[in-house]
Amino acid sequence: MTANNTYASAGVDIAAGTRATEMMADAVRSTYGKEVLAGLGAFGGLFDVSALKGMNAPVLVASTDGVGTKTKAAARLNRWDTIGQDLVNHCVNDILVQGARPLFFLDYVASSKLNPEQIAAVVGGVATACREAGCALLGGETAEMPGVYLDGEFDLAGTIIGIVERNRIIDGSRIQSGDAIIGLPSSGLHTNGYSLARRILDSLDWETPHPDLDQSVGDALLAVHRSYLKPVHQLRDAEVDIRGLAHITGGGFIDNLPRILPENTGATIQRGKWPELPIFSLIQQNGQVEDSEMFHVFNMGIGMLVIVPAEQIQQTLAALPNDSYHIGEIVAGNREVTIR
Amino acid sequence: MTANNTYASAGVDIAAGTRATEMMADAVRSTYGKEVLAGLGAFGGLFDVSALKGMNAPVLVASTDGVGTKTKAAARLNRWDTIGQDLVNHCVNDILVQGARPLFFLDYVASSKLNPEQIAAVVGGVATACREAGCALLGGETAEMPGVYLDGEFDLAGTIIGIVERNRIIDGSRIQSGDAIIGLPSSGLHTNGYSLARRILDSLDWETPHPDLDQSVGDALLAVHRSYLKPVHQLRDAEVDIRGLAHITGGGFIDNLPRILPENTGATIQRGKWPELPIFSLIQQNGQVEDSEMFHVFNMGIGMLVIVPAEQIQQTLAALPNDSYHIGEIVAGNREVTIR
Repeated sequence: MTANNTYASAGVDIAAGTRATEMMADAVRSTYGKEVLAGLGAFGGLFDVSALKGMNAPVLVASTDGVGTKTKAAARLNRWDTIGQDLVNHCVNDILVQGARPLFFLDYVASSKLNPEQIAAVVGGVATACREAGCALLGGETAEMPGVYLDGEFDLAGTIIGIVERNRIIDGSRIQSGDAIIGLPSSGLHTNGYSLARRILDSLDWETPHPDLDQSVGDALLAVHRSYLKPVHQLRDAEVDIRGLAHITGGGFIDNLPRILPENTGATIQRGKWPELPIFSLIQQNGQVEDSEMFHVFNMGIGMLVIVPAEQIQQTLAALPNDSYHIGEIVAGNREVTIR
Repeated sequence: MTANNTYASAGVDIAAGTRATEMMADAVRSTYGKEVLAGLGAFGGLFDVSALKGMNAPVLVASTDGVGTKTKAAARLNRWDTIGQDLVNHCVNDILVQGARPLFFLDYVASSKLNPEQIAAVVGGVATACREAGCALLGGETAEMPGVYLDGEFDLAGTIIGIVERNRIIDGSRIQSGDAIIGLPSSGLHTNGYSLARRILDSLDWETPHPDLDQSVGDALLAVHRSYLKPVHQLRDAEVDIRGLAHITGGGFIDNLPRILPENTGATIQRGKWPELPIFSLIQQNGQVEDSEMFHVFNMGIGMLVIVPAEQIQQTLAALPNDSYHIGEIVAGNREVTIR
C-alpha cells in the first residue's frame, strides 16, 4: 500500500503543536504556586484545594470568555504578546465583580494553521497576566482547524476559576436609591466593540501617531484590558462597603449595570464627569455613530463601576488611584440606566 | 449627526446572542444541582463546594478541549444536537483518567454569524451530556466573530472541573511490567482525525447507507464520543486495582499511552484482539493510509485503556460490558508502544 495520505498533508501538524507546547512551557510553569500538582503525564491540570477546608462556606466562581475580534486587530498589527493579557484580565474582572479571587485559568487558542511562535507569544501573554493576578495557568488547548478559520485569523478564549466565601459574595442585592456610582478608568476598548471599530477605522494608518490621539491607532486599539483586582482589594482594605461591582463589557453601561440592580432601582450616569478617551471620539466622528449606540457598544472610558453608600464617596475615592471618578447615582427606577 | 454605523451593521447581532441564550436557558437549568447558586445577574457561575470540607485532601482537576473539525462534519450534515455531547464526553474522559468525577462544565461556541437555533441545539447537546455525567453546565460564552471564521463554520470548546481525593489520583506510577491492558470500545473517531477523514471521504455520499458500513458515512462520522464514566465506576465498585487509564485522543495509542507509563516500561498492543470498526477500514482503503499513520491519528476502535494487574484480568472483564477486550501487556521498555 502506498501512503499518500498523512495527517500533515491534511493540514494538521502534530509536531507544530508539540513545538508550541515546548516553547510556552517555561512561561506556564512560572505561574505555578504550591497548589499545582505537576503530575506524571497529566491529561488534566491538578490544583490542591485543601486550603478551602479552612473556609466557612467556599464557593467556586467560574467564567468563560473570549476577546472577540480584538484578535483581528492583533493580527493586522502582527503583535501577539498582549492579547493573552486582555483575555486573562477580562476574566479576572468577570469573577471579581462577585467578590472572587482567581485560583487558576485555562486557555484555548485555535487557528487554521498553527504558528508555534505566534501561539507561544499569545500564551506567554496569558501567563504574564496570570502571574500578575496570582493565578495558575493550569491548562490549555491549542487547536488546528483547517477550513474553519480564515487564513491568518485565530480565536482565543479562556476559563477562570476563583473562590469566594459564601457570605462575602457581592451580588448587588443591597444596592439602594441614593447610592453613589464610582467609575474606574478603562485603557481603551478593552475587549469589546472591535468589529465596529475596525470597520470604521480600517482605512486609517494604524502605525504612526494619529493627531487626535497621543499614540497610533494601532497602539490605542491594542491597549491592554485593565485588571481591577488591585483597586478592588484596596477598597476592601479600606473597609469600603462595596454594594455592587459591574464590569463594563459588551453592551456597555446600558446592559451591564442592570445585571446587578435590584428591583425598583435604576441608575443615572452623568457624562462629562470622566474623560471619554480620544479613541472613542475618533470612532464616533469617523463612523458618524449616535451617542446611544456608542454607549451600547463601548465602555466609553470606564471599565468598572463600583456602587457604594453616598456617605462613603470620599473614603472610596481616597482609596483608589486619582483617575477614578464619581460619575452617577442609584435612583428609584425599573433597572434602567440613563446617560445624561 | 446621521447614524450610519451600528453594531448590527458591522456583523454583530447582540439580540441574536440574547435570543440564543433564552432558547438554551431551560436546558442549562436542567443540569443544576443544589450546589449551583443561581445568583442575581451573575457575571460568573457560582458553585458551592462546602462538601469538599468533608474530604481529606481535595484536588480540583481541570481540562479544556475542543472537538476539532468534527464541527465541519456536523455542519455538512446540518446536524447540531450531538456535537455538544462529543465535547462534554471528551472532557469527562480527560479528567476521569486521573480518577476525578466531574463537578461542572463551561462551553464556548463561536462562529462568524450567530444562528440562534443552531447554537441552542449545540448547547442543548452540551446540557444533555452534562446531565448524564451529573455535571452542572455552570456557564458559557457564545461569540460572533465576523471575519475570523469561514462562513457557515463554527468552533466549539469547553472546560471541565472535577474533584478527586489526593490519595485516589490515578497517575500510572504503579504500572509495572506484566500488567494487562484492557481496551474499552470507541463508537468511531470520537473527536480526532476529522481533517484527514473528511479529506479522504469528502467525495462519498454521506447520507445513504454505505455497503461497507451498517450505516451512512455521515452517521458513522457523527457517532457520539463515548463517556467512560460508568464503566470506570463499575471497575471501582468491583474493587479492581486500576493502575492507569489512558484516554485515546489525538495521537492514538502511540502518543497517549506513554503519557502514563513510568520509566523502564513500555507496552505492546496486539491487533486482532478487538474489532477495528468498519469506518477505519473505509478511511484506510480509500486514502491508502499506512497502518502506522492510522494508529498515530485514530483510536482504531478503542477509546480508553485500563491498566490492571494480570491476575485481575477476569475480574476486570467481568465488571465491564462484554465488548471490552484484553488487548495488550505492559513490558520492560522505554515508554514506547508497539502495535503487533
